Amino acid sequence: MDERPIGIFDSGIGGLTVLHEIGVLLPRENLIYLGDTARVPYGTKSIETVVRYSVENTRFLLSKDVKAVVIACNTASATAVDFLRSEYDLPVLGVIEAGVEEARRRSRTGKIGVIGTSATIQSGKYEALLRKSGFTQIISAACPLFVPLAEEGWTDNKVAEDVARTYLEPFGNGAVDALILGCTHYPLLENVIGRILGDGVSLINSAKAIAAKLKERLAATGLQNESGAGERLYFFTDSVERARTVGGRFLGENLENRIRLADLSEFAHPI
Amino acid sequence: MDERPIGIFDSGIGGLTVLHEIGVLLPRENLIYLGDTARVPYGTKSIETVVRYSVENTRFLLSKDVKAVVIACNTASATAVDFLRSEYDLPVLGVIEAGVEEARRRSRTGKIGVIGTSATIQSGKYEALLRKSGFTQIISAACPLFVPLAEEGWTDNKVAEDVARTYLEPFGNGAVDALILGCTHYPLLENVIGRILGDGVSLINSAKAIAAKLKERLAATGLQNESGAGERLYFFTDSVERARTVGGRFLGENLENRIRLADLSEFAHPI
Repeated sequence: MDERPIGIFDSGIGGLTVLHEIGVLLPRENLIYLGDTARVPYGTKSIETVVRYSVENTRFLLSKDVKAVVIACNTASATAVDFLRSEYDLPVLGVIEAGVEEARRRSRTGKIGVIGTSATIQSGKYEALLRKSGFTQIISAACPLFVPLAEEGWTDNKVAEDVARTYLEPFGNGAVDALILGCTHYPLLENVIGRILGDGVSLINSAKAIAAKLKERLAATGLQNESGAGERLYFFTDSVERARTVGGRFLGENLENRIRLADLSEFAHPI
Repeated sequence: MDERPIGIFDSGIGGLTVLHEIGVLLPRENLIYLGDTARVPYGTKSIETVVRYSVENTRFLLSKDVKAVVIACNTASATAVDFLRSEYDLPVLGVIEAGVEEARRRSRTGKIGVIGTSATIQSGKYEALLRKSGFTQIISAACPLFVPLAEEGWTDNKVAEDVARTYLEPFGNGAVDALILGCTHYPLLENVIGRILGDGVSLINSAKAIAAKLKERLAATGLQNESGAGERLYFFTDSVERARTVGGRFLGENLENRIRLADLSEFAHPI
């Protein structure tokens, strides 16, 4: 039994979908969320910069005495999870491994697709993990316009459809039977993506998968908290106003007094 | 005669178009460019965060002994120029004022339009300056998808056309006779924008205007350098690899050995 909170970080607001699923499966756990909204997005940045930011985020969460770190951001999971595990002595869970495990459960043909940000796809992390877990036919593609489309709220109009049709071209006609939505924003475009690819392709959203994995891991290591108050605190590095509005929309609840501004400058650290 | 360099900062790579125009008008001046590619874009962030980043950028340039600071980024010009002028004792030129002056020269009907990032438009800075210089009919609109479209290289396809048609709807049918392209990336979409609005609307790109203003200002204050070597150094906060490729494309020249990584962590400063 361990009452310390679980830390979850993301490049912005999208990772709240991961927090939400963790809350559903582990309602008694105390959760601390950090969204790096001042430096979002990570997906267009270099690997070194994303690792550096991930270290700062982790050090911030450690200063809040977390017992485990969940990386909700696919780009940070792809680029920083190994480094964070080697540096810090607590469980670090990345959303990518969870997505790959879910893909193994869901794909029947073994033909798998992955879409993500430029940095996620360039890192080759999904491909490496998919190959390791037995997939041999892997198609991946970066979809840089999906994040700005989702943030603009253009998730189901003509532009979204045209953009999706262009990006998803390699995945049609039976090329894959499952597609990993390798970015927290992409589930917002699930309707359009599903319409273009049809029923033959199942769409994998890793938020649920990582929540299940976290639950197992806490139980296995004796870190779970089954009688806590389920308290939540939300930190953001950019002004909290926008986070309050947009974050509320992601979570379907009022964040009100549990939202704070985080200053990461004291956590800067050479890597 | 003052041999110190001129400092130019931008949220990323787009401001190189401003550097280019300054180089054309003032070929002997030494120029130092800082692109904050690790934290780009500024246009979706809060005003406080953009001001904070602009202060760090300016302090970095001051550490290189610049004689003047040019803010190539519209969002930073809109939100931070007044603060920077109040804090630092050297000429600080913002791209917005230059664009407004150019608009006054170009508009015949006095009906003017402005497009920019969300932060630029929300700041109300263009509207305030346009009103001050006599415009009474001002239409403005944020176009958040233009930057990611330009970065994806989708500047003249069907998606770009659909997006532009949606955003530019308020400016058609004689609503304005000039449109300020209030973001360094937007000139890359000039073809599509021009086609949609037609010949009756002149498109204003402030890069040339600010170069002219800078030349005047240096002459008036005795800061010009007419016999310098025209040396250039380019600093970026994210990995220089991408900046080398994309930046070269913006400038049409090889940046090669004149490109450096900038660490801004020592320039953090409360505002």
